[in-house]
Amino acid sequence: MLRVLRQNGAQSRNEIAARVGLSRTTVSEITSDLLGRGAIRVVDTDAVERVGSGRPAERLALDPASGQYMGVDFGHRRVNVLVADAAHDIIASGTARYEESAQWPERLDAGLALIDRLSAETGVHYGALQAIAIGVPGWGDRSSADGVAEVFATRFHAGVIVDNNVRFAGLAEALHAQSDSVRDLIYLRLSDGVGGGLVVGGQLVKGSNGYAGELGHVTAVPGGARCRCGKSGCVETVASVPAILGRCRELGVPVDTLDDLKAAVEIAHPTVDQVLREAGTAVGRVLGTAAMTLNPDEIVLGGEIIQVAPALLRQVADTVTYELSWRIDAAPVIRPALLSDDGGARGAIAALFHESPLLAGYEANVTTDGGR
Amino acid sequence: MLRVLRQNGAQSRNEIAARVGLSRTTVSEITSDLLGRGAIRVVDTDAVERVGSGRPAERLALDPASGQYMGVDFGHRRVNVLVADAAHDIIASGTARYEESAQWPERLDAGLALIDRLSAETGVHYGALQAIAIGVPGWGDRSSADGVAEVFATRFHAGVIVDNNVRFAGLAEALHAQSDSVRDLIYLRLSDGVGGGLVVGGQLVKGSNGYAGELGHVTAVPGGARCRCGKSGCVETVASVPAILGRCRELGVPVDTLDDLKAAVEIAHPTVDQVLREAGTAVGRVLGTAAMTLNPDEIVLGGEIIQVAPALLRQVADTVTYELSWRIDAAPVIRPALLSDDGGARGAIAALFHESPLLAGYEANVTTDGGR
Repeated sequence: MLRVLRQNGAQSRNEIAARVGLSRTTVSEITSDLLGRGAIRVVDTDAVERVGSGRPAERLALDPASGQYMGVDFGHRRVNVLVADAAHDIIASGTARYEESAQWPERLDAGLALIDRLSAETGVHYGALQAIAIGVPGWGDRSSADGVAEVFATRFHAGVIVDNNVRFAGLAEALHAQSDSVRDLIYLRLSDGVGGGLVVGGQLVKGSNGYAGELGHVTAVPGGARCRCGKSGCVETVASVPAILGRCRELGVPVDTLDDLKAAVEIAHPTVDQVLREAGTAVGRVLGTAAMTLNPDEIVLGGEIIQVAPALLRQVADTVTYELSWRIDAAPVIRPALLSDDGGARGAIAALFHESPLLAGYEANVTTDGGR
Repeated sequence: MLRVLRQNGAQSRNEIAARVGLSRTTVSEITSDLLGRGAIRVVDTDAVERVGSGRPAERLALDPASGQYMGVDFGHRRVNVLVADAAHDIIASGTARYEESAQWPERLDAGLALIDRLSAETGVHYGALQAIAIGVPGWGDRSSADGVAEVFATRFHAGVIVDNNVRFAGLAEALHAQSDSVRDLIYLRLSDGVGGGLVVGGQLVKGSNGYAGELGHVTAVPGGARCRCGKSGCVETVASVPAILGRCRELGVPVDTLDDLKAAVEIAHPTVDQVLREAGTAVGRVLGTAAMTLNPDEIVLGGEIIQVAPALLRQVADTVTYELSWRIDAAPVIRPALLSDDGGARGAIAALFHESPLLAGYEANVTTDGGR
């Protein structure tokens, strides 16, 4: 029951009963005991859900003061920080910018200064900080990020996990899906590069070496353009923002930025439309294969270009739909990302609440006692 | 601890201690209690692992008589049946053949007659049958198989789960891998059709609608040959056994059966080699994308043709290796299936031991008590 509250935030007794599979009566007995011991609190009432007598149902949560959880997302040009309490409420949030050329020491300083500033502004002193999750860009080369983890661990005397920030954003999308039934999801972000993440059974999947969902360097166009990774025709060579802008320019359309692209899309420029459709077809083929590998509930496309150029998402969706046409009931929902730029930090905190070994105390107890 | 024994079969106290994360002393206390209550038994001694005094270590298991578990695999031409006791020992096994043209009632009769015959031969009377897992061929269209589940449930008064038999074979490969660390695996079987299965974190993944790992109808050759599914250029049109034999014949090599193909491979027929390499490249590209989706520890190829034509596996491995060359540490082991024709039935039983809600009694208790 404590795990349900930790993973899902505030819940009514009916919601708890549904999640743990116990009767409403049994849940009431146990919550009464936990309330008496101060482990949980009534945080508010849910005006929509009413109990038999017509009173609004109380919502219960872990004692908010019992823990703080920090999510940090170091992007290429900014760091986002979010701090949540044990009831899942965000109690501090902020962003600090740096140049794309900034190296790790500078990025780290910007992050720590932001965290200090948030404390001064909100009065949150990180005294109950239980764990920190840090998202960083890029693939497996995380040696520099290891140093970052140490700095945070020493500074805050808390456990730290580090993972790819796009992967964290994918987890956040799965948890913010409109339906609780979204358990399996593929997330792909088209940006300066192309990255992604995979959620299976509501959990972030790393795979054998932390590359699960990294579809940017799958061959989309055999024999295509040379990629920075050393191969040819990777997804990134046709569907990253620089690749799409570059292809438009090759065909004579002068677009240097996403704003230029947006303007060209707004006048329905046929060459730009053609480039977006080519990119969407290539991405859609790769996602079609990924979708048959996992058979996910949803495929989510992130990155600013998805908002700027809706034809891209449409073409991806059409291509995936064709690929899965042999089994129409396998077709996932294909949608743009719902979360904005703070998705990475939200997902980092979600990873702490849902799956970090740092917070696995309840599960560890479960295994030890219950396994007997 | 009971769960560890149910999932892993007989274990020494040291092995149990390592799996549950308790000290050897604590494990000894608990096993002593469980032995006293008759819940577990000493099944044998492990001559390799010796305790301090030099005595061979005892291996413990659930009381074998406390349960029986049946795995049934209805293939296109035969049904395999395996029965295991609670200690994971196979106590009955057999095969019955039927014509490929046989319909469900006939296949079902063959299966039930086999089960009766096994009882007569082995003296196993299925009195402690706890659960049955039935593997069936094909995609989502399992309405006929629903009837099969009912027949078994009524006949044996046991819970029944039904899933695709290729998926069960994939789970069996993951559990029979040479290393305990194989948690994520992609299984692909090249046969009359092409099917597959996906294991993530040691568990069989179904995906949203039961299609996870069904890579047979992914487009491998855009604009390629018409497929029975209605699309063009699917993996099945280039890498199923009929497709490979047909392509060889198109190019003038008279091969009608796998035996013919084997003979042609043995004389290193260059046209056959070319056809196998083309098929291997197509399969390898698709598996490269699947591998970046999941980043598995292993990719396993099953089906008789993999044994007959080793060039096929080599070409798949080379293509996947190239696809993952940008991150060499992401490369999975790519190997032929280790289990023979009874892999489907073995995987069916494994699904019962590992993940079936039918046997989730211990986990259900864990959630109920431990969650509080």
